[in-house]
Amino acid sequence: MSRPVAEWLERFETAVTAPTKADWKSVFSEECYWRDLLAFTWDIVTIEGQAAIAAMVLQQSARIGAGGFTPAEGTLPMSDDTQGWFTFNTATARCRAHVQLRDGRAHVLLTAMVELIGHEEIGGSRRPDGIAHRAEKGRRTWLDQREETARTLGHSVEPYCLIVGGGQNGLMLAARLKRLGVPTLVIDALERPGDCWRVRYRSLYLHDPIFLDHFPYLPFPDHWPLYTSKDKIADWLEIYARAMEIDFWGSTLCTAAQYDEKTGEWTVTAKRGDETLMLRPKQLVLATGLAGAKHVPHIRGAENFAGRQYHSADHGSGAGMADKRCLVIGSNNSAHDICVDLWEHDAQVTMIQRSPTIVVRADTMREGAKTLYYAQPGADIDLADLMFAAAPFRPRLASEKGFTDYLRQVDAAFYKRLADSGFQLWHGEDETGFFMAYYRRAAGYYIDVGGSELIASGEIPVQHGEIDEIVADGLCMADGTFLPADVIVYATGYRPMHEWVSLLISPEVAGKVGPCWGLGSGTAGDPGPWEGELRNMWKPTAQQGLWFQGGNLMQSRFHSLHLALQLKARMETLPTPVYRAAGAAG
Amino acid sequence: MSRPVAEWLERFETAVTAPTKADWKSVFSEECYWRDLLAFTWDIVTIEGQAAIAAMVLQQSARIGAGGFTPAEGTLPMSDDTQGWFTFNTATARCRAHVQLRDGRAHVLLTAMVELIGHEEIGGSRRPDGIAHRAEKGRRTWLDQREETARTLGHSVEPYCLIVGGGQNGLMLAARLKRLGVPTLVIDALERPGDCWRVRYRSLYLHDPIFLDHFPYLPFPDHWPLYTSKDKIADWLEIYARAMEIDFWGSTLCTAAQYDEKTGEWTVTAKRGDETLMLRPKQLVLATGLAGAKHVPHIRGAENFAGRQYHSADHGSGAGMADKRCLVIGSNNSAHDICVDLWEHDAQVTMIQRSPTIVVRADTMREGAKTLYYAQPGADIDLADLMFAAAPFRPRLASEKGFTDYLRQVDAAFYKRLADSGFQLWHGEDETGFFMAYYRRAAGYYIDVGGSELIASGEIPVQHGEIDEIVADGLCMADGTFLPADVIVYATGYRPMHEWVSLLISPEVAGKVGPCWGLGSGTAGDPGPWEGELRNMWKPTAQQGLWFQGGNLMQSRFHSLHLALQLKARMETLPTPVYRAAGAAG
Repeated sequence: MSRPVAEWLERFETAVTAPTKADWKSVFSEECYWRDLLAFTWDIVTIEGQAAIAAMVLQQSARIGAGGFTPAEGTLPMSDDTQGWFTFNTATARCRAHVQLRDGRAHVLLTAMVELIGHEEIGGSRRPDGIAHRAEKGRRTWLDQREETARTLGHSVEPYCLIVGGGQNGLMLAARLKRLGVPTLVIDALERPGDCWRVRYRSLYLHDPIFLDHFPYLPFPDHWPLYTSKDKIADWLEIYARAMEIDFWGSTLCTAAQYDEKTGEWTVTAKRGDETLMLRPKQLVLATGLAGAKHVPHIRGAENFAGRQYHSADHGSGAGMADKRCLVIGSNNSAHDICVDLWEHDAQVTMIQRSPTIVVRADTMREGAKTLYYAQPGADIDLADLMFAAAPFRPRLASEKGFTDYLRQVDAAFYKRLADSGFQLWHGEDETGFFMAYYRRAAGYYIDVGGSELIASGEIPVQHGEIDEIVADGLCMADGTFLPADVIVYATGYRPMHEWVSLLISPEVAGKVGPCWGLGSGTAGDPGPWEGELRNMWKPTAQQGLWFQGGNLMQSRFHSLHLALQLKARMETLPTPVYRAAGAAG
Repeated sequence: MSRPVAEWLERFETAVTAPTKADWKSVFSEECYWRDLLAFTWDIVTIEGQAAIAAMVLQQSARIGAGGFTPAEGTLPMSDDTQGWFTFNTATARCRAHVQLRDGRAHVLLTAMVELIGHEEIGGSRRPDGIAHRAEKGRRTWLDQREETARTLGHSVEPYCLIVGGGQNGLMLAARLKRLGVPTLVIDALERPGDCWRVRYRSLYLHDPIFLDHFPYLPFPDHWPLYTSKDKIADWLEIYARAMEIDFWGSTLCTAAQYDEKTGEWTVTAKRGDETLMLRPKQLVLATGLAGAKHVPHIRGAENFAGRQYHSADHGSGAGMADKRCLVIGSNNSAHDICVDLWEHDAQVTMIQRSPTIVVRADTMREGAKTLYYAQPGADIDLADLMFAAAPFRPRLASEKGFTDYLRQVDAAFYKRLADSGFQLWHGEDETGFFMAYYRRAAGYYIDVGGSELIASGEIPVQHGEIDEIVADGLCMADGTFLPADVIVYATGYRPMHEWVSLLISPEVAGKVGPCWGLGSGTAGDPGPWEGELRNMWKPTAQQGLWFQGGNLMQSRFHSLHLALQLKARMETLPTPVYRAAGAAG
């Protein structure tokens, strides 16, 4: 650790351990952000400004008992005269931290819990023996134990934690809870782990390069392709569930859940095949993905359409669509991918774009991603995740605008061709582009994997504006254009995730908890007030015992740790004093 | 690299590149061993002595074209003033090497091929993209390709390589061949990968700690237990086959194989369910394990036994054996494990020991193994395997005797108690103990995981000597002792591996190829002449196109690379001049 950072660390330690006497102006710069992942707040928050930071530390310091601030060992990236890594403990946990200085004061501070003291994950030096080398009557083998768990968990033995949704989100969390010894059951409406991917359209591939996509504990082999087919990632989910010994019930539909505040227990109704079971976990995690039910806008006359019409979720493949006149309503990822798939199968495809769309080229993103620490051979993924987390959302606004400028420059010819073809391009209402659109509403963009060229070259014509009516043989646009059609695909997105709460639990609880995802940016689809972190994700919600686990593979990998730590701490009844700013709700 | 080693390397390079003028006495010490894994000899050999080394280099040097001798980069273990690592190339391959000096000359040299130039494995920087980011009619997804392979391989498309046996040996080799682009089919008589473990007795666990057991490319997660149950390793085989996309046919019995010298092609008859298929691979690998068919010695009167008698391979579990009088014939691993299992299920067990047995305590082995580089956090497994390989078998005789002395000392009390109970202990006829017994005949020992204590304490009595006769209600020993019995278990081992050759191919080919495994030590069960490496394993045999892949997990991992490189080189018709010492057969 460089001397300036070490000197700052001393000042920080002094302030944190005696907050009533602290001179925060000497520790944090005017504009400052403290992003805390559980360490100080038992919450996922970014606290902005000296005053708010002072208030937080004043409230939390004694409850948390932070100490042992120590420069990190070894040579780490993001370490120089203006930034560095350190570790510390609280009364309950080991933590890692990174600070970025401006004029010797913290501009951005990240503090992150990584491990509970005395309740560590098994693994590494805590690896179990598996067997005792002595004869012993009544000894049970690994298989005996697995069979017993399969027989009893969810029946005579209640899981402490029930995860609804066995996609990558549910499985990664379950893997972490397994290593923490938290009895967990994962249920999923589909039969096998990975089916959530298998049911999607045949041509789907992951948009993120593989080095961002690793699951905890079991990295992909290094010949794994850079971009993974949905069927291959599906197989990986199944492999992962098995390797991690995750207790998974497929073909099991969660139909209702009710929380008893007195007992602190959920009663969850689950239909498993013909059986209806009542599960009584203490903690309920919804890992049903960012998307709720399919959203199909009501369009006048849709019921009169004589052809085939379906939601994008029901698109399997363009096979058999040759020469069919296909209208795809929407202009985001699914819309583009389905347009390409239909075109590849010789359909006559028209895209109906209802609003401007952010487009980024996958190949450009790939080049950018290659420079990330994640992509370096032998990268420490846990460290990489922390490095990524060291950029809170608010200061990212400026850098994302910069990234937009960069894209405009390197892909100028591409954007010009696309715009010239009539496609309505933008970079978001404040020009923060793709990443912010993802964090704000997880929609509104296309990661170009080939569709834009078809549009730019006129292979796929684009119609704009509002739709007036659907008739038996086509669709009338508001401007009077008639589009004849054999097939209409609604690539119109999904209902919001938190509607599941309303459906499964109650509208009251849904109202109390509020929306999930989004930053409160005040832009369309992401109403304020500013939250600074993704709403309700991986952190305590207004409903005790209810949690949300979701996001892309990167987020799911990283934040499943934080959710797992919170659940384990509660199971062990460790103190978990969640910080609530004065005047805040909840 | 230290100066003395660097100076030696210069002398070595000079000698190797101009062998007619070489002064080998200045390069190798009087007693010297050059272990070569394909690099110079396209064989797995240890060449002993200056004269033999000179002869080998003289024959191979020009054919191989070795050059580019360079000290290895970085700080590696086993590097000091007397030893060090270097790399070199041949015309076809990249190689790694390690030398151990005595008085400035090589006492032991290891040279090992690691990669074919221009035919490298995919992986790392050669990772495929998986998808091209452009629309393309007729494009096939990952699933399309997998489905096509499943449909065609072994039917309209012949595998270049057919592996008979889908245990860890077959799967590891198949995984390597997959990354090398060698079309390979694995067939196994049992239904699923891992079934070879699932059918074994319920209480079986791996005897090697997990850090020795990693499969190539997909390390076990670090919470994996130190000792793995056979059912868990079975699951891993299934996981591995899937993750590596190995083309595996279960429930497929190989019944015959014939080689056509003219076409260089095998005709292999395989029964897959009700179908009989003819496969025509160029290369046939037997990966059926070290064991052949069950060996049950003929004992007079066995047909008159009124109770249950079965081979150890058919022992599932001791459940239901309470109070049964069980005789277990044999005193090696299986015999002990089955005795323990029966005792744990309250049977009355007697072991019949027919010859002295090497016993090592698993817990002592574990402590020893912990000091290996393999066990260190973050160990590079490829390097660890090379470090292990840097000890050829002949010089290991002395160190194994030393290990015997060490065991006698640290486990003196244990051995005394066991011997006092009447159990016939030894450390092999030349006191080289467990490891050499494994390499010589893969039998003759017990890795104590609890059985010895039952014997020492008298819980399991031991009878010695020859068996005279089996009668309806028991067994008569040659000394006249009568042992009443309800159950007789024959833990009497297996027929030798190479009998498969006789059964599947022909007695002529079996005779030509000769036995597999064993070093030619001249000790019982391992007839001479001295071979210095394991006979016929992972290397060219006297039958073109016939190969043997086997051994424990460590060996299988390491040597599957060598076998894969040989097969790939032949598929690519690279020159593979196998060294044959003057006067040697074949």
